[in-house]
Amino acid sequence: MMRHYKAYCFDLDGTMYRGSEPIQEAVDFVAACQAEGKGTYFITNNAALTRTAQQKKLANFGVNTEVDFIMNSATTLARYCKQHFEGAHVMMIGEEGLREALELENIHITTTNPDVVLMGLDRQVTYNKLADACLAIRNGAHFLGTNSDIKFPTEKGLVPANGSFLKLMEVATDTKPLIVGKPEPHMLEFIRQQGMYEKEDMILIGDNYDTDIMAGIRYGIDTAYVATGVTPMEEVLKKAQQPTYLLNSLADWLK
Amino acid sequence: MMRHYKAYCFDLDGTMYRGSEPIQEAVDFVAACQAEGKGTYFITNNAALTRTAQQKKLANFGVNTEVDFIMNSATTLARYCKQHFEGAHVMMIGEEGLREALELENIHITTTNPDVVLMGLDRQVTYNKLADACLAIRNGAHFLGTNSDIKFPTEKGLVPANGSFLKLMEVATDTKPLIVGKPEPHMLEFIRQQGMYEKEDMILIGDNYDTDIMAGIRYGIDTAYVATGVTPMEEVLKKAQQPTYLLNSLADWLK
Repeated sequence: MMRHYKAYCFDLDGTMYRGSEPIQEAVDFVAACQAEGKGTYFITNNAALTRTAQQKKLANFGVNTEVDFIMNSATTLARYCKQHFEGAHVMMIGEEGLREALELENIHITTTNPDVVLMGLDRQVTYNKLADACLAIRNGAHFLGTNSDIKFPTEKGLVPANGSFLKLMEVATDTKPLIVGKPEPHMLEFIRQQGMYEKEDMILIGDNYDTDIMAGIRYGIDTAYVATGVTPMEEVLKKAQQPTYLLNSLADWLK
Repeated sequence: MMRHYKAYCFDLDGTMYRGSEPIQEAVDFVAACQAEGKGTYFITNNAALTRTAQQKKLANFGVNTEVDFIMNSATTLARYCKQHFEGAHVMMIGEEGLREALELENIHITTTNPDVVLMGLDRQVTYNKLADACLAIRNGAHFLGTNSDIKFPTEKGLVPANGSFLKLMEVATDTKPLIVGKPEPHMLEFIRQQGMYEKEDMILIGDNYDTDIMAGIRYGIDTAYVATGVTPMEEVLKKAQQPTYLLNSLADWLK
């Protein structure tokens, strides 16, 4: 049975919704947590949407949250950059979500001679942007990425995600990027700092073993796998490191 | 000392010129071969330039050749595609060199539902072109590339070449492309067919061990390494498979 936690950290796609369809059991579970005064956080590798746009998307599904409780890989990258490269001039490849996150942290964005190159999914990317980033990294700029997801689903099928572009840049520069998105534990650490929690008060709830569950396991908090998205239950059962809980859906915790 | 051959196959960048500077010993050696009535061929992984543009570039350096003696990875890919996928509808990512090569072979170019995806360096590439190619390959289209060079030099430094983009597409589609450029031997085979040579009548001359020399070794013809470009002599000397000849430059053969 479930222990009680102070901070429930929900993955989004595959956990709270699938594309444009809400997962009702998850929506109801979030409402139940909020009614009991628990902290509910939403964590996503999606760096393209701004947090305000993400908040609206959740509201359309009946999930209410303040923007501060949405942690995406763009916000995480901006905070990480601020903490580790104070005052740096930053070249970015990315969409509005990343730009807004950098501006909120007052990070100096440049297109020439950067100290740091930050790379998230950019569907307006050009060859020249990639070449400029490649030259900057080869000249010694630090190389960081929002998330390493290789592909993502659309109504037409799977298309290249940021991880595919990071792979392009990694081979072109002979440099591996530092990634802040799941399965790296940076988002969870920022949540812990923000709410001043102990790790034993936190739980991560997600459908993707390799990103969500591994982020929780690596960070050292409890995890709940839900069979509503990417990784099938039978695959999870074969893994050496098991989640704390295995659920068909969050309906299992609503009884 | 050098045997005599009927067909001399010269790599271009690093062998005939470096960027915008001719390598005079090579220019003189080509003229000497031509004066003796030998076949001189120019082989390059560059798929962006048309053969006519390449011919002009060589003429500016004092090298005269008919277009038919220039073999680039775009022409090779178009011929390969014609031979193996007769009548196929083809999606292309690439520049003018590839487009012209496909048109010369009367290959049907499409942007929807292709049977084959052909990929060469495209400095006007967009996210949508990459996503469409990814979806087509995931739907079963054959996936071929001009060349797998990861980067190429510019006056600003090394920038991503077609191999970097092929890597992006390979991870996004879980499919390895078939490559026709060096070190694959397809260009040499087309030269052999064109001139009706025996393999022992052919020699490959190049500066890059991993692409040029390996293409010759894998195809089974004699090879001459020249120390005027990418691979340093001391690195070549360490290789298990040695070129037939090791030259500081083609001046060694002009005496």
